[in-house]
Amino acid sequence: MSRVRVHNFSISLDGFGVGESQSLEAPFGHAGERLLRWALPTRTFQRMGFHGREESTVGVDDAFASNWAEDIGVEIMGRNKFAPSRGPWENEEWRGWWGDDPPFHTPVMVLTHYPRLPLEMEGGTTFYFVNADPPEALRRARQLAEGKDVRIGGGTTTVREFPQADLIDQMHIVVVPILLGRGERLWEVLEGLEDRFTIESVVSGSGVIHLTFTRRVGA
Amino acid sequence: MSRVRVHNFSISLDGFGVGESQSLEAPFGHAGERLLRWALPTRTFQRMGFHGREESTVGVDDAFASNWAEDIGVEIMGRNKFAPSRGPWENEEWRGWWGDDPPFHTPVMVLTHYPRLPLEMEGGTTFYFVNADPPEALRRARQLAEGKDVRIGGGTTTVREFPQADLIDQMHIVVVPILLGRGERLWEVLEGLEDRFTIESVVSGSGVIHLTFTRRVGA
Repeated sequence: MSRVRVHNFSISLDGFGVGESQSLEAPFGHAGERLLRWALPTRTFQRMGFHGREESTVGVDDAFASNWAEDIGVEIMGRNKFAPSRGPWENEEWRGWWGDDPPFHTPVMVLTHYPRLPLEMEGGTTFYFVNADPPEALRRARQLAEGKDVRIGGGTTTVREFPQADLIDQMHIVVVPILLGRGERLWEVLEGLEDRFTIESVVSGSGVIHLTFTRRVGA
Repeated sequence: MSRVRVHNFSISLDGFGVGESQSLEAPFGHAGERLLRWALPTRTFQRMGFHGREESTVGVDDAFASNWAEDIGVEIMGRNKFAPSRGPWENEEWRGWWGDDPPFHTPVMVLTHYPRLPLEMEGGTTFYFVNADPPEALRRARQLAEGKDVRIGGGTTTVREFPQADLIDQMHIVVVPILLGRGERLWEVLEGLEDRFTIESVVSGSGVIHLTFTRRVGA
C-alpha cells in the first residue's frame, strides 16, 4: 500500500503552523516567512524556484527537505494553501501561488467545499478541487497517484486532520525556535500519537529541530 | 544583580507542563512520570533521592540537570508544586512532597492566596507562604537569597508568569516527545520571546530536546 507522508511542515515552538491574519500579501499571517527561513537556502528549495541566493546548502536541513518529492504521486492540500480567498470562488482566475509551472509536477487535490473544474498547469501539475473528508480524499488521491505515495501538503488544519483520522504513515515536522503566540495549532487533539510512532529528532545548524514520526509496524 | 533562572522544566511536544486531573496520587495528572523520565536516571536526580537504580548517567541530560542548584539562594514555586490541595489550608500537616529533608536546601517561597507560618525543614529548606504577584514575589525572594540567584521552580503557571512579566534571565526547558493533548500549557501569551533571548537546542540520547534561553545583553 502506498504511504501517506508529511514533509517539511514547519511550526513555531508554541505549535503554530501559521500565524493570524492570513492574506494575499501575507500567506503565513503575522508569522511572515519566519517558519520557512530554514528551508529557503537549501538546494532543494533553491531548485524549486526560491531564488535570490548565490549558494545553496546541502547540510542537515537539505537532507530532510530533499525527501519531499521522491515516490510521491499526488499531493493533498487544504483550500487555504491554494488560495487566500474564502467561501465560493468569486472568479476562477486564481491559479495558485506558484506561477504557471508549480513545483509539484503531480496531480494536486485541493480540499474545498466549493468544487470547480480541474486546472491543468505546465510541468505536470493539475489541481483537482474536491469536497471530501480525509478518508474519502485519500481514497480518491490514491486513484490519481497510480501506486505512488500521497503527500499531505498543508496547511495546518489539513496536516492535523490526517493523523487525527489515523491516516498517516510518516511525518517530518520542523520546530522553529520562535513563539508566535497566535494562529493555528498543529498539535490539537493528538494525545498519545507517540504510542503509534517512533519519534526521532535532531537539531540542525540553522537552529531548527527536525522531528520525524515513523509509524511502528503493526501500529 | 542576581539572576532569575528556570532549570529542568519539562513539557510535552504539544507544550503541556502538567497533565489534567492532578491529585495526591498523580501530581502530574494523566502525564504520570513521563515528563520526568529523562531526568530520573541522571546522577543529579539520583543524588536528590530518586533511587531505585544501580547506575546513574552523566551524559547530556545530566550536564543540564546538574546546573539546577549552583549559586541558587532561593526557589519560588506555585502552591500546586507544594501541595495537591486547593483553597484554604484545611490543616497544616502537609509538609510538601519531599519528606523531612527536601532537596532544596535553601529558602523556598510558595506562592499562595492563603498565607501560613513558615515551615522549617531539615537540611536548610524553609518554606515561606506568600501572597504576591511575580514582581513582588521576586523582590521578597531576593531578600531571602542573600545575593544569590533565584530559581523559578514550577509549576507551569508559575514558570510562565515570570517570562510574561519579563522577569527571567535564563531558562532551561526540556521538550519530551509525547503528546499529552490536555493540561496546562507553558507557551501561552509569550509571543516574540525569541527577540529578547538567544535560544539554543540539543537532542540527548534519551530522546528529549534541551532548550536554553539566555537573555541577550541589553534586551
